[in-house]
Amino acid sequence: MRLMSFRRADGKTSWGIADGTQVMDCGALAPSLPPSLRAALASGKIADARNIEALLADARGAPRHALDAVTFLPPIPDPDKIICVGLNYLTHIREGGRDVPKQPTIFTRFANTQVGHMQALIRPSASETLDFEGEMAVVIAKRCRHVKRVDAHAVVAGYSCYNDGSVREWQRHTSQFTPGKNFPCTGGFGPWITTPDEVGDIADSTLTTRVNGEETQRATIDDLVFDVPALIEYCSTFTILEPGDVIITGTTGGVGAYRKPPLWLKPGDVVEVEVSGVGVLRNFVVQEGAPST
Amino acid sequence: MRLMSFRRADGKTSWGIADGTQVMDCGALAPSLPPSLRAALASGKIADARNIEALLADARGAPRHALDAVTFLPPIPDPDKIICVGLNYLTHIREGGRDVPKQPTIFTRFANTQVGHMQALIRPSASETLDFEGEMAVVIAKRCRHVKRVDAHAVVAGYSCYNDGSVREWQRHTSQFTPGKNFPCTGGFGPWITTPDEVGDIADSTLTTRVNGEETQRATIDDLVFDVPALIEYCSTFTILEPGDVIITGTTGGVGAYRKPPLWLKPGDVVEVEVSGVGVLRNFVVQEGAPST
Repeated sequence: MRLMSFRRADGKTSWGIADGTQVMDCGALAPSLPPSLRAALASGKIADARNIEALLADARGAPRHALDAVTFLPPIPDPDKIICVGLNYLTHIREGGRDVPKQPTIFTRFANTQVGHMQALIRPSASETLDFEGEMAVVIAKRCRHVKRVDAHAVVAGYSCYNDGSVREWQRHTSQFTPGKNFPCTGGFGPWITTPDEVGDIADSTLTTRVNGEETQRATIDDLVFDVPALIEYCSTFTILEPGDVIITGTTGGVGAYRKPPLWLKPGDVVEVEVSGVGVLRNFVVQEGAPST
Repeated sequence: MRLMSFRRADGKTSWGIADGTQVMDCGALAPSLPPSLRAALASGKIADARNIEALLADARGAPRHALDAVTFLPPIPDPDKIICVGLNYLTHIREGGRDVPKQPTIFTRFANTQVGHMQALIRPSASETLDFEGEMAVVIAKRCRHVKRVDAHAVVAGYSCYNDGSVREWQRHTSQFTPGKNFPCTGGFGPWITTPDEVGDIADSTLTTRVNGEETQRATIDDLVFDVPALIEYCSTFTILEPGDVIITGTTGGVGAYRKPPLWLKPGDVVEVEVSGVGVLRNFVVQEGAPST
């Protein structure tokens, strides 16, 4: 099942289930269904296979919209937490001659940095060093703490694609990455959350990034140093995870900053992040202050 | 004016104005006043001196509670953003032989790490290295971006005391501080927000921290490398600041980690952070899993 958030042609925000070229508008069934995808996760309606069957039965009566007639929002527009993981692909770490880390490198994004599928990434006026980072994202299904890796599958709502867009100049101001990772509208997220029953083992998926159609990054998810269960165990030790929380699992080699010359994103560029079995996220770049049609 | 958030004896959350040993319960006047302090800031009702006069006039009709009959909450329990600044006191940087940084070191906390005045800080089961960091906090009054330092005063709602409690072992797992700064209930915040008209020039204030009555940290706010206007200019360049956002301006020398032997906080300890002219924040330490009476 592919769960998405969107804005209807009438301007109202909603959520639903993508089905071919259409979306079943679950939000239109409120209050018999929750009004947002985050609320649906919190209600437990998408927690396991049995609930998903019931949700699908409910959604059969929902109005349908063509996908190209709605505006994609980030699947979770307002997560309580967005937890990002730094360098996490083994091949990439080894090719850089670095030691394999003992713990994941964790930083955060604010919710207002996110944009949905087919929406504009904004290159800020403060710097021209906007870079892409294709990543696989995990969305949390339920409130949890101290989750052991063997139990981690039970708190996964599904997987998505993420472009952890980074303003390198500001990322490197000090030891802490926060400023470079938090410019508004630099994080592409979507197009939807694909549930585990549909994805199968996420470790079998491949992550690829393309800029203007040209492949710039490629990795297999089984190359993660800290896989999804390890990340959930680590993060749930230092924080309480909530329904809708997003863990962005890290990027691999090929980012623009390390190319010679560097490949910075510029207005008009199109960036795609694909996680096989999950989806393809596509965003275009506009300059801060320019109309984002 | 001292603005606070609290839980009444009847279990309901509210906000109001501290007045001597009492609080005027502004939340009880909803809907003629907003239901929370964050909403009150967003409504523009606390934006300038003229509005404050009007708010005080409204509040005169509010029910009053004794301060010791309510439970203090973090003044903003649910900020959109909590932005933390690393090492920011000049004397402390120089005594460590470090270079004065060109940009502030920025990391973040999640809202669920905060506790109010007189509430329990939780030492996690994951590590015994819980440390204190006394800090002065600035609360943002209105949505803003690209604020120049000369205009920064116009977006300040007021000042508070913060204990940026840190689990050092987890802060040092990697280059990024996030895990050590985000254990639940490790950030003391309060007791209230004191408005600029009452504080005067915050640079004239003194910051002190006491553990079990013994002074452990002391600095004057005029020793900040990046003062409040500089921080607002920097942060509003990389993010959109919202009403109720909190900027925690950094700590000074004397933290437990650098003492010989280290002074880790243990259950039963009492930590106070005082910013002269603003208030005294007091918290006690309990062990994770212990009842927090």
